[in-house]
Amino acid sequence: MSALLFKNGFASDNHSGIHPQILKSLTHVNISHTASYGVDPLSESLNAQLADLFGDDTEGFFVFNGTAANTLSLKTLLNTWNSALVADMSHLNVDECGAPEAIAGIKLIPVKTNSEGKLTVEALKKHMIRFGDQHFSQVGCLSITQPTELGTVYSIHEMQELRDFAKKYHLKLHMDGARLPNATEFLQINFKELRKSFPMDALSFGGTKNGLMGAELVLFWEDIYKRNFRYIRKQTMQLPSKTRFLATQFLTWLENDLYKDIAQHSHKMAVQLKQSLDNFSEVKVLYPVQSNAVFICFPKPWTNALKKSRFFYIWDPDLWSARLMTSFDTTQKDIEDFCKTIKTLSHSQKEVAP
Amino acid sequence: MSALLFKNGFASDNHSGIHPQILKSLTHVNISHTASYGVDPLSESLNAQLADLFGDDTEGFFVFNGTAANTLSLKTLLNTWNSALVADMSHLNVDECGAPEAIAGIKLIPVKTNSEGKLTVEALKKHMIRFGDQHFSQVGCLSITQPTELGTVYSIHEMQELRDFAKKYHLKLHMDGARLPNATEFLQINFKELRKSFPMDALSFGGTKNGLMGAELVLFWEDIYKRNFRYIRKQTMQLPSKTRFLATQFLTWLENDLYKDIAQHSHKMAVQLKQSLDNFSEVKVLYPVQSNAVFICFPKPWTNALKKSRFFYIWDPDLWSARLMTSFDTTQKDIEDFCKTIKTLSHSQKEVAP
Amino acid sequence: MSALLFKNGFASDNHSGIHPQILKSLTHVNISHTASYGVDPLSESLNAQLADLFGDDTEGFFVFNGTAANTLSLKTLLNTWNSALVADMSHLNVDECGAPEAIAGIKLIPVKTNSEGKLTVEALKKHMIRFGDQHFSQVGCLSITQPTELGTVYSIHEMQELRDFAKKYHLKLHMDGARLPNATEFLQINFKELRKSFPMDALSFGGTKNGLMGAELVLFWEDIYKRNFRYIRKQTMQLPSKTRFLATQFLTWLENDLYKDIAQHSHKMAVQLKQSLDNFSEVKVLYPVQSNAVFICFPKPWTNALKKSRFFYIWDPDLWSARLMTSFDTTQKDIEDFCKTIKTLSHSQKEVAP
Amino acid sequence: MSALLFKNGFASDNHSGIHPQILKSLTHVNISHTASYGVDPLSESLNAQLADLFGDDTEGFFVFNGTAANTLSLKTLLNTWNSALVADMSHLNVDECGAPEAIAGIKLIPVKTNSEGKLTVEALKKHMIRFGDQHFSQVGCLSITQPTELGTVYSIHEMQELRDFAKKYHLKLHMDGARLPNATEFLQINFKELRKSFPMDALSFGGTKNGLMGAELVLFWEDIYKRNFRYIRKQTMQLPSKTRFLATQFLTWLENDLYKDIAQHSHKMAVQLKQSLDNFSEVKVLYPVQSNAVFICFPKPWTNALKKSRFFYIWDPDLWSARLMTSFDTTQKDIEDFCKTIKTLSHSQKEVAP
Repeated sequence: MSALLFKNGFASDNHSGIHPQILKSLTHVNISHTASYGVDPLSESLNAQLADLFGDDTEGFFVFNGTAANTLSLKTLLNTWNSALVADMSHLNVDECGAPEAIAGIKLIPVKTNSEGKLTVEALKKHMIRFGDQHFSQVGCLSITQPTELGTVYSIHEMQELRDFAKKYHLKLHMDGARLPNATEFLQINFKELRKSFPMDALSFGGTKNGLMGAELVLFWEDIYKRNFRYIRKQTMQLPSKTRFLATQFLTWLENDLYKDIAQHSHKMAVQLKQSLDNFSEVKVLYPVQSNAVFICFPKPWTNALKKSRFFYIWDPDLWSARLMTSFDTTQKDIEDFCKTIKTLSHSQKEVAP
Repeated sequence: MSALLFKNGFASDNHSGIHPQILKSLTHVNISHTASYGVDPLSESLNAQLADLFGDDTEGFFVFNGTAANTLSLKTLLNTWNSALVADMSHLNVDECGAPEAIAGIKLIPVKTNSEGKLTVEALKKHMIRFGDQHFSQVGCLSITQPTELGTVYSIHEMQELRDFAKKYHLKLHMDGARLPNATEFLQINFKELRKSFPMDALSFGGTKNGLMGAELVLFWEDIYKRNFRYIRKQTMQLPSKTRFLATQFLTWLENDLYKDIAQHSHKMAVQLKQSLDNFSEVKVLYPVQSNAVFICFPKPWTNALKKSRFFYIWDPDLWSARLMTSFDTTQKDIEDFCKTIKTLSHSQKEVAP
Repeated sequence: MSALLFKNGFASDNHSGIHPQILKSLTHVNISHTASYGVDPLSESLNAQLADLFGDDTEGFFVFNGTAANTLSLKTLLNTWNSALVADMSHLNVDECGAPEAIAGIKLIPVKTNSEGKLTVEALKKHMIRFGDQHFSQVGCLSITQPTELGTVYSIHEMQELRDFAKKYHLKLHMDGARLPNATEFLQINFKELRKSFPMDALSFGGTKNGLMGAELVLFWEDIYKRNFRYIRKQTMQLPSKTRFLATQFLTWLENDLYKDIAQHSHKMAVQLKQSLDNFSEVKVLYPVQSNAVFICFPKPWTNALKKSRFFYIWDPDLWSARLMTSFDTTQKDIEDFCKTIKTLSHSQKEVAP
Repeated sequence: MSALLFKNGFASDNHSGIHPQILKSLTHVNISHTASYGVDPLSESLNAQLADLFGDDTEGFFVFNGTAANTLSLKTLLNTWNSALVADMSHLNVDECGAPEAIAGIKLIPVKTNSEGKLTVEALKKHMIRFGDQHFSQVGCLSITQPTELGTVYSIHEMQELRDFAKKYHLKLHMDGARLPNATEFLQINFKELRKSFPMDALSFGGTKNGLMGAELVLFWEDIYKRNFRYIRKQTMQLPSKTRFLATQFLTWLENDLYKDIAQHSHKMAVQLKQSLDNFSEVKVLYPVQSNAVFICFPKPWTNALKKSRFFYIWDPDLWSARLMTSFDTTQKDIEDFCKTIKTLSHSQKEVAP
């Protein structure tokens, strides 16, 4: 753990802290008393802002983390006798400790993804079975992660194909957008355009991995979901009290395009990292770098030295691949130092095995 | 709502903001990257601090709010076929939107409280029935709120009586300590002494209502609970990611006795408020003022004017009683202004109905 | 236990066996193969029969026991953030081991009953609070037991008052009719007339306590409930497979008014039992005998001798009251023998304490 | 549906009725009153019988159907943060409408089976990941179906391999034995020998598919499971009341080796059916016939005529394979008639396409 004490790294965008502007905004709103539980004036401003960005009927609800945003999205859209189609490697399937099953009571259908970590109509099609059969959990929702767990971004066309497929089978649509601005910036579209291609019933709109201290939103457009979600959220223990401090974080992030700046910076850093890593023959970048993640294969003996330089996590212990995440505060020095370390290792290795 | 825009009041200790020292601490730890999910160095320091205060085996776990602290305490201590004895007016029973039932799967037995809002052995006794009967949800836990919902404080003797009763029936003990330091300061005991009188299996140790931005702890002492809680918490969507920012709030609050200062100040303000209100014959203070709450009955026609002066909530619409809460930032001016308004009303009323 | 080995008694109408006609019907339909899971021809006939008795839109669904009928009725009518108003002594509240909470995820509001074990508008009224408040489980349903746990029967007027009350607050209506024909026969109404006075959204229509081997129905009239219940039932593990054997039991019971005969007989036996018991000054019959239950207070020292004569259960250990249940196979000899035993005890007691 | 009205077929062993001896036993025990809820003398005899067959510590608990037996087995063995390894085609995964997720709150890991529908160590191994990681539902149980969904039987050696694998990873063992005697008869072992090879923590021991009217048992050997299951069963709505009628079915089935006779007969019929079908070049038997199931591929145009002869279900609509189940009452005439129909079809087809 000692290597991790307050030092930049590529471990995760939640290892980074709070963006300075966002932190400052907490002080601005720390004045006197105001209403709690989402009826403070700042929470109301935020909803106006969300309507601006996502369209007129948008309503956002704070929840505390991504596990809640994803799990409660499904809980709101589905009955317990429904299942949701998810990527086999999705957070919902492998990183929520069974919350969708235990808390939403639903079944997940893990679907194989293609070489870029994306769901395809072809892979989904074979799960379209036994509709109307009471013995079988009824497929009721398609959930995609945008950008994907591999840092790739569904194109507009890919989203439209999934939308058309879902429509055909009357599936609800959910998007896990823990890092959504990374996708919209890569696609060069705004949120309204995103909704046109993929008209979600529920969106997990994450802040924590984008420079906030800790806050997520779930967005709905249909009245019935908005009405029910207030009770669902409270009952599932996700209603925050001093909401002004969550609202101000999101407001600051969304105002003056700060969210775009952060997405662009972290993408730029990821691309620079990839380009720097391309110089080393022993390092192989695995997927297109379309957001703030770079996945690499590298010689296993380098691991300790590399982690010491800038900490990161091993993604696949069989392939010995690593996930390198950039964030709002990643610097060129981080990249340079990391590559300097590689250079040493690469050099020594060449000497050992010429 | 407009009356509520950033103006001090007596509505709730979560209408107040963040204590300045605690807010400042966020900036101090906003440096570089560090581990998330509770393995950062600050979270580890906090556990050392908790062991100091509560005894050697103490381990604390962040959760996001009081609903979670209470509900997950019960979920950890009980099986789904157990019930918990709670005060009929307790948060668990009337303010969690059914979370204990829906999320912990347990049954609550609402027990009548005495004139000070406290559970008594006499009232609990009659619920000690049908042990071993598979048709009946088995009573498994006693949960008390300290201070109570009415702002009163269980005496050491009262806690000991409940402890002995619970022991006799092999009941687990839980304490909802959303405002715990208000009780320990009133009793002039420390947390270790508290545990001697009431050896809780789980404690909801609240921060949000005591000047933090938003953070609660659940404390356990038994290994099995500590082991299980890590998974229970994650699965119930309560695992925060950037934990350094929660840890620093609690650390700041617990260091240099800030938590005692806040409790003492808010109690002092409540006592002053009570004493000032005692001057008005139309206002009746209902319960002993032992923490930061003052409950009053007052003439219904005064309501709008009084709320405009300092906002508060009506507690019992039948009695037309109000709950006035003080907090770390309540000032003498708040009390004076409020009483000045009463004075006008009291005077005018006298003229109207001599 | 030895006293219980196959000897008539007053313990419960589920201590009795299967009515001979119903048992015989099992043999009649034990021919060859047929469809399972409720699409066999007998199950279809039963639904026609139910429509005849309860009105056109009636659809019945088998479940295995009363716990399921009651719990799943509420689960179908309510969201998890709803609560149901129930009698404090109702099966739902005290005899289902927390199933409504754990399986339906809802909260029960136990309501004090009047001296005949009935819910009244006056008692219900004070629970009509905090509608629209997300912190509070929203009251959504009124459930009554007909006949009540004390064997009394809500009059038509009483049912209408409860119906009007429920309508005012948009509450769904559920009836626990584990012994429903006992009530309709006492009131001399048919099931359609029952529905007019109390237009239930869901009815637990019990067979097991009325001479069947073991089968219950849940009846719905609204399409949405019928559609959802198929999945709810399967998922909550209540879908029987060889349904012809359940259908034939209900068909036989409902044909040729067998269900009325059974209700009338058991009521007649209860009345005779009450009249015989009235002869003993030491025995006090507690409530009006309106179905197949007689509740008595009697001298505690008699207990063993009386249980040996005809087994029964103590109802309230404080009052030392007993519940004596009659059933389709209760005979005059059962009553005579029981009273003979009392006579001996009564006589000997008189000698002991003249 | 009309084709299904009381005519033998190969649809499922729950399309058949009640074995005559078992039906007769209901009459034998339909005498007078006796205790309910599993404390009647017959239920107690059954437990003695089970101890004889399965070993000293065996305790059996009635539940109503296979969904309950399987789901509650897992619920009893696991915490909600555990997952269970199951065959991808297992009932638990695809035929319980999400009950394991919704009722037990656990996650299922669907594992690919080999060409005979069996789980193998190789396939299981890759799911042994992330132990101790709170973000990941912890693998806690291996559940196998014996015989499998494809009618094949795990050999003793195969069971031992799985047992050793499970032991290594501290996994609990569950067996779905809806048709268990078909497996033990094929393997020529008794239940104690079965337990030696595969020391289950919980066994779903089915009766309904083996000639009973409708009853299943869950067997446990550990005290903690037995203690907890009483409450789990009641709370999940699976406690039957007139248990003498379930006990007598199992007793009759287990006495005088009736269960072996039924298993042997249905296996013999399945083998004869397979051998008869082998005569037709257009029909392909897909898997080894080791219990009472024969899976075939056959020309799609034959479907209606074949179903009319003896009803059955299509298993895989892509392969156009069918599952033919035999049962205690399958006759040689059933096989002959079915093959006669095929002969006509086969002949006519030959003429059409010579």
